[in-house]
Amino acid sequence: MRKAVFSLLVENSSGVLSRVSGLFSRRGYNIESLTVGETLDSSYSRMTIVTTGDEDVLDQIEKQLGKLIDIKEIKELPISETVCRELILVKVECDASKRSEIAALSNIFHAKVLDVSEKSVVIELTGDQTKLNAFVSLLNSYHVIEIARTGITALERGAK
Amino acid sequence: MRKAVFSLLVENSSGVLSRVSGLFSRRGYNIESLTVGETLDSSYSRMTIVTTGDEDVLDQIEKQLGKLIDIKEIKELPISETVCRELILVKVECDASKRSEIAALSNIFHAKVLDVSEKSVVIELTGDQTKLNAFVSLLNSYHVIEIARTGITALERGAK
Repeated sequence: MRKAVFSLLVENSSGVLSRVSGLFSRRGYNIESLTVGETLDSSYSRMTIVTTGDEDVLDQIEKQLGKLIDIKEIKELPISETVCRELILVKVECDASKRSEIAALSNIFHAKVLDVSEKSVVIELTGDQTKLNAFVSLLNSYHVIEIARTGITALERGAK
Repeated sequence: MRKAVFSLLVENSSGVLSRVSGLFSRRGYNIESLTVGETLDSSYSRMTIVTTGDEDVLDQIEKQLGKLIDIKEIKELPISETVCRELILVKVECDASKRSEIAALSNIFHAKVLDVSEKSVVIELTGDQTKLNAFVSLLNSYHVIEIARTGITALERGAK
């Protein structure tokens, strides 16, 4: 079993997300993360899928995805040569007495405080999963009210 | 027509993404952005959907989503009271002669240079869509090789 990151160039049709996610759920392939966003050409989107499986399963996934309508290009990104990033928003219970502690913790992680109310703060952090999980587990000693994460997007390093 | 942001709490099942995206594509509802990520309780994920439509359509979307299996909670977030963020990775053609110009532009936007090679850089930027689009259009005067975006995630401001 290993982790794989697939980067897909897909047409911006209403059905492409449902076809891709349907393929994974019908065949029981695991989706760890899926993100999608427009490219420079607004008729195409780039989709990033993180999945795990043994070599056979990963091969099948790549082949089956390649057969779907509206998928123009599919490439597995080599993990050691790939920049993987995710964005997380965390809302934490925080009154005036905790604000400086939480601000200091956010600074250490280069996280941004986006909203402050009397009883809470909303913090934004980006990074790889290890960093995000470490930050969330530290914030857990305060009361985390809510978390929203984007999932992982990725580009291969270098000029390719 | 207006924009709406729905925040859903969903069970971490393999079929939930395909059910949600299938509903949108079957009924011809527009998905501007969809992101999903685990919450603190790893059996649930938070899904954020940005869509546009008239009041009738937005009402229908909320009701139809509420009927799907594995959707535990659905809420429309009031846009003026919501923090919406997206992460973008941009790979730009950049040799030594352009590096300081592109680094200066990245600094102005508080973007991070994640990778530098002889002929390219990979830059990370987070923010709302207006900011991301402005950054990309400025980078376009260099040669943008590739873009990957996560889609939008969102939390309501305040302690709710």
